Amino acid sequence: MTDTALQDAARLADAVRSGDRRALARAITLIESTRADHRETAEALLAALLPYTGNSVRLGISGVPGVGKSTFIEAFGLHVIGLGHKVAVLAVDPSSQRTGGSILGDKTRMVDLSREANAFIRPSPAGTTLGGVARRTREAMLICEAAGFDVIVVETVGVGQSETAVADMVDLFMLLLLPAGGDELQGIKKGIVELADLVVVNKADGDLAATARHTVADYRHALALLRHGDWRVPVLSCSAFRKIGIDTVWQTIGEHKALTEANGARATRRAEQARAWLWSEIRETLIDRFRSHPAVRADLARLEAEVTAGTTIPAAAAHTLLGRFLAQSDRA
Amino acid sequence: MTDTALQDAARLADAVRSGDRRALARAITLIESTRADHRETAEALLAALLPYTGNSVRLGISGVPGVGKSTFIEAFGLHVIGLGHKVAVLAVDPSSQRTGGSILGDKTRMVDLSREANAFIRPSPAGTTLGGVARRTREAMLICEAAGFDVIVVETVGVGQSETAVADMVDLFMLLLLPAGGDELQGIKKGIVELADLVVVNKADGDLAATARHTVADYRHALALLRHGDWRVPVLSCSAFRKIGIDTVWQTIGEHKALTEANGARATRRAEQARAWLWSEIRETLIDRFRSHPAVRADLARLEAEVTAGTTIPAAAAHTLLGRFLAQSDRA
Repeated sequence: MTDTALQDAARLADAVRSGDRRALARAITLIESTRADHRETAEALLAALLPYTGNSVRLGISGVPGVGKSTFIEAFGLHVIGLGHKVAVLAVDPSSQRTGGSILGDKTRMVDLSREANAFIRPSPAGTTLGGVARRTREAMLICEAAGFDVIVVETVGVGQSETAVADMVDLFMLLLLPAGGDELQGIKKGIVELADLVVVNKADGDLAATARHTVADYRHALALLRHGDWRVPVLSCSAFRKIGIDTVWQTIGEHKALTEANGARATRRAEQARAWLWSEIRETLIDRFRSHPAVRADLARLEAEVTAGTTIPAAAAHTLLGRFLAQSDRA
Repeated sequence: MTDTALQDAARLADAVRSGDRRALARAITLIESTRADHRETAEALLAALLPYTGNSVRLGISGVPGVGKSTFIEAFGLHVIGLGHKVAVLAVDPSSQRTGGSILGDKTRMVDLSREANAFIRPSPAGTTLGGVARRTREAMLICEAAGFDVIVVETVGVGQSETAVADMVDLFMLLLLPAGGDELQGIKKGIVELADLVVVNKADGDLAATARHTVADYRHALALLRHGDWRVPVLSCSAFRKIGIDTVWQTIGEHKALTEANGARATRRAEQARAWLWSEIRETLIDRFRSHPAVRADLARLEAEVTAGTTIPAAAAHTLLGRFLAQSDRA
């Protein structure tokens, strides 16, 4: 670590803690950078800010395009800001996979919220893998906490694999549903409902109010059967557009916080998340190095095709490739 | 590869294909061995047998202790043998984690089935990790197929992580339930019901018949809501003890086979499983090497504890440890 990098990191850390919004944006840009020297400064910055992190409610919010996620987050953000909180909104989906309104940039989706002094909205970093986005989002969350934001919303589209990554970095994972039939009709991928700590049926107004009531009843029944642990997953309804039911959602999040702080579940969950984060960093880096190793790259595609076609045993293909990758470190 | 290893493998492959049961048992013992020279012969054996694999119905069966899994597998195995099939039963749970009757060994649980010439029962290999057991079970499955078994039952206890490993190696994953309330009351871990392609409520006889009907209705309702894809997960009931409903289970498995063969889902699933198996072999070996590297071992426990306590950023700890592990191959 160079002295300059350390000094830069210390200065930036002070500015972030003082509430300087441009410093906050710059700090997040720094951790999003893949340049090796930036990464050094980023790690020094995170180390300096770490003692001031952890004091927020970390929320994951997921829902398929069309569920009204932006409208919900805006109404929800304005509600909790009205109660004196500071809200940061981070997105985790790799931008290439995004659909719908977000093509115009996240801020244009939440016009009123983005004007608030106590709100900070950060679009998803562009053109990178889910693993990369998830790592940076975890770090951005810590930086926002050090900057004084006490409600962090991590947003994802409920159609892919990013939901597991988000559920693994928050205290409470909320799934927004449409007033409609089951998962398949709503376009929700298998296993995502099981991740939810809280289910909210949005658009419960006007013509859809009755359908919303049925959807709430159906999911309550299903989740009661599949429930696990002390927390009984609540199924609520709201209308983000008409700002109805948002207060109950926030109140329920408070109940979850109180319960999980009292019974130790939140601390346990955060410790497990940190350990899982360490191992996922290690695994992803090892696999990246493996894939980019010249002797592996030479035959990987061919062997993978043979394995998929059923003409080579996976263990034998793995053995061949690993032998090449590990040969050097064994000889060293 | 030595000539002797190749000759041994070729001889053993011929004996397995001829239906020699002792050769079959010896072949599985060989693939279970962790000795490097055994592994060489094992890979040659698997390569020789590979063209004769794939022609079975691969079933995963899971259920918590007490659900009557052994009784079910015995009744089911005898039923399909009666129809002219050959049945192999493999177990995947690391033996140290096993509970209940299996402590006496798997064969004593299925006395009648184990006496059948057309049945082959193999207990879980002792004292190893889940990853190791899963790898060997996948390979044992291929060997059984080459030996002419056309129904392979891979069995696991529905309380841990092995269910995902089993669902990832079979064509159809079946969950056995008790006539009782929801998942939590039954002791089923979160996410396991979502893995099921078929749900069967066992012990649907006598005093429990009415409760079983309610359980079937409840799970049908919940799974209809969460359903995905072309296959609507059926919820059946049976009494393995009284041998009632076993025929319907087998018939439903046949319907699943017909549908997934016709729409290509089975071939796609098997190709994806083979690719995932390749990558899991690679990941597990890399992580094993990483963990056992002297420079990593020196500080891993301390850094992991700091990360869990929240005093070190996971990315920084990973960076430190990976630097040590990868330094050698970078310099080479």
